[in-house]
Amino acid sequence: MIDHPRDALTFPLSESQTLDPYVPPTPDPEYPTLHVTLTFATSLDSSLSLAPGTQTALSGLASKSMTHYLRSKHDAILIGVGTAVADNPSLNCRIGGVGGYGGKGLKGQPRPVVLDPRGRWEVNNESKVIKLAKEGRGKAPWVIRMTNAKEENAREKEKVLKAVGGDVFIVPSECSSASESMSRIDWSNIFSLLTAKGIRSVMIEGGGGVINDLLHPQNFGLVDTVIVTIAPVWLGKGGVQVCPDERVEEGVRIPVGRLRDVKWVPLGEDVVLCGRP
Amino acid sequence: MIDHPRDALTFPLSESQTLDPYVPPTPDPEYPTLHVTLTFATSLDSSLSLAPGTQTALSGLASKSMTHYLRSKHDAILIGVGTAVADNPSLNCRIGGVGGYGGKGLKGQPRPVVLDPRGRWEVNNESKVIKLAKEGRGKAPWVIRMTNAKEENAREKEKVLKAVGGDVFIVPSECSSASESMSRIDWSNIFSLLTAKGIRSVMIEGGGGVINDLLHPQNFGLVDTVIVTIAPVWLGKGGVQVCPDERVEEGVRIPVGRLRDVKWVPLGEDVVLCGRP
Ligand SMILES: NC(=O)c1ccc[n+]([C@@H]2O[C@H](COP(=O)([O-])OP(=O)(O)OC[C@H]3O[C@@H](n4cnc5c(N)ncnc54)[C@H](OP(=O)(O)O)[C@@H]3O)[C@@H](O)[C@H]2O)c1
Ligand SMILES: NC(=O)c1ccc[n+]([C@@H]2O[C@H](COP(=O)([O-])OP(=O)(O)OC[C@H]3O[C@@H](n4cnc5c(N)ncnc54)[C@H](OP(=O)(O)O)[C@@H]3O)[C@@H](O)[C@H]2O)c1
Repeated sequence: MIDHPRDALTFPLSESQTLDPYVPPTPDPEYPTLHVTLTFATSLDSSLSLAPGTQTALSGLASKSMTHYLRSKHDAILIGVGTAVADNPSLNCRIGGVGGYGGKGLKGQPRPVVLDPRGRWEVNNESKVIKLAKEGRGKAPWVIRMTNAKEENAREKEKVLKAVGGDVFIVPSECSSASESMSRIDWSNIFSLLTAKGIRSVMIEGGGGVINDLLHPQNFGLVDTVIVTIAPVWLGKGGVQVCPDERVEEGVRIPVGRLRDVKWVPLGEDVVLCGRP
Repeated sequence: MIDHPRDALTFPLSESQTLDPYVPPTPDPEYPTLHVTLTFATSLDSSLSLAPGTQTALSGLASKSMTHYLRSKHDAILIGVGTAVADNPSLNCRIGGVGGYGGKGLKGQPRPVVLDPRGRWEVNNESKVIKLAKEGRGKAPWVIRMTNAKEENAREKEKVLKAVGGDVFIVPSECSSASESMSRIDWSNIFSLLTAKGIRSVMIEGGGGVINDLLHPQNFGLVDTVIVTIAPVWLGKGGVQVCPDERVEEGVRIPVGRLRDVKWVPLGEDVVLCGRP
């Protein structure tokens, strides 16, 4: 028997085989493309957390292990700055056998990527993701910033990131928006950057702002796979909701997006929905 | 082979057996109690329909057959007046073998009940539920009204209902609310009325106002079983959402409600969640 550290997670083979049609395929070295997986956990009333800026434990242990199994199958994990600030997340993979959890080096560890256009994430040596990188239990994070962002402490933060092997990348913002504070980065530019940096699969984990943006019909086609865990609980009004902007075509409201190639996998008390846009 | 009418639905035995632990038990004639089932279909973003006052086809044929199977297992179906007005619903059971669909009389047909405290439902001879009652394909509806409701055309509507064997019942309103237009009926009074009228099981089908009211911690304990169908689609903002009011205890926000004894049943493209409060 292999001896894994105590805090390592396991995900049963029978369950991982059910999910395997939805994990990124082995990349073709001749054609460098990016596989985009969108994944998150909600309540029955489609909330990610009880309130903005707070973290809510929604899914059970089995679903947590599944998330870490999925992480081991991706080159990178991406989250929005709202999640980085609210959750101080670890963003590593704790499945037994990956680097830092019984395995050698950083094998199977995904690259954490934080989408932080205006430099709001106060990353420092106390941030979990930095500590884990120092301990050799996760890769160092990359931060995606927007051109012309007026960021405070930009130098200090860059130093913290680079000291553990992380980096900051600048991506041009869309010019469509009137006010600077409203301007965004085109997802295709984000994905081009990741592809150029050698990433062949990215798992986008949230939060609400990022997910609702990607469910928008303009972006949804960029996503390859969607994996949603639903917990049998209602959180109630005032939570951070997955609920994209409405879609109107020829004056008529229509559903924003539908999944095809759907599979529902009960997992503990939760259910996992796999599908493709 | 039994010859069922063309528009009759069938629900496979293998699937009905999966649901059977959640259907109302055979009533004990010595102890007349009421089994309350709350059931509805939502999108992934917890919407019942694209917009107030409109009906949205959400779930597939298999889920529709399941709903009709469940209806055959209940003495009554209850909906709120918002749904009666928006959907002009049939509120009968179309499973092959029940009365009107291959079976004799009205055997297996549930009693439609419309919760219409202020008499907003303009029931008339063109209403689907009245036509079906006339054709012997469903029971005649009961309407639950509040004391002192200033209802228009009350006489005409009562005549339409009574002509097919329906009725209007008056239930006292809660006096807790300051304004008359805000006053509501206590669910325990609604359930007492139904019990007194010989109903032993009621399936509450919506819509948003009724469901959110029943998910409130004050009422949730009155519910025995919850059956939710989830379709793999996002409807987007502006829909009629199942999202109960937030719950705060000792100054802290907590989840509004959780289900126990949970079973997830994939059904076509949808999933059916069965559980108990
Ligand atoms: N249950 C789960 O699976 C799960 C997973 C993750 C997070 N969460 C929860 O979700 C909440 C955080 O969600 P959130 O909505 O506040 O934050 P978020 O989605 O993590 O981050 C949103 C921010 O990311 C930036 N962003 C998003 N799309 C962009 C684009 N196209 N171009 C440029 N910037 C973009 C914007 O930053 P600027 O505002 O700086 O422009 C935006 O405000 C927390 O409560 C967290 O616990 C739950
Ligand atoms: N997907 C599904 O499974 C499903 C099922 C059913 C309906 N729907 C959809 O839901 C929508 C209708 O929902 P809705 O929220 O507008 O209407 P609704 O829930 O059907 O009816 C709400 C009304 O019922 C009355 N009511 C509710 N609780 C009460 C109480 N405790 N005491 C007294 N009266 C009470 C109130 O009438 P007053 O306002 O007169 O006081 C309230 O406004 C429609 O779009 C329909 O298509 C979907």
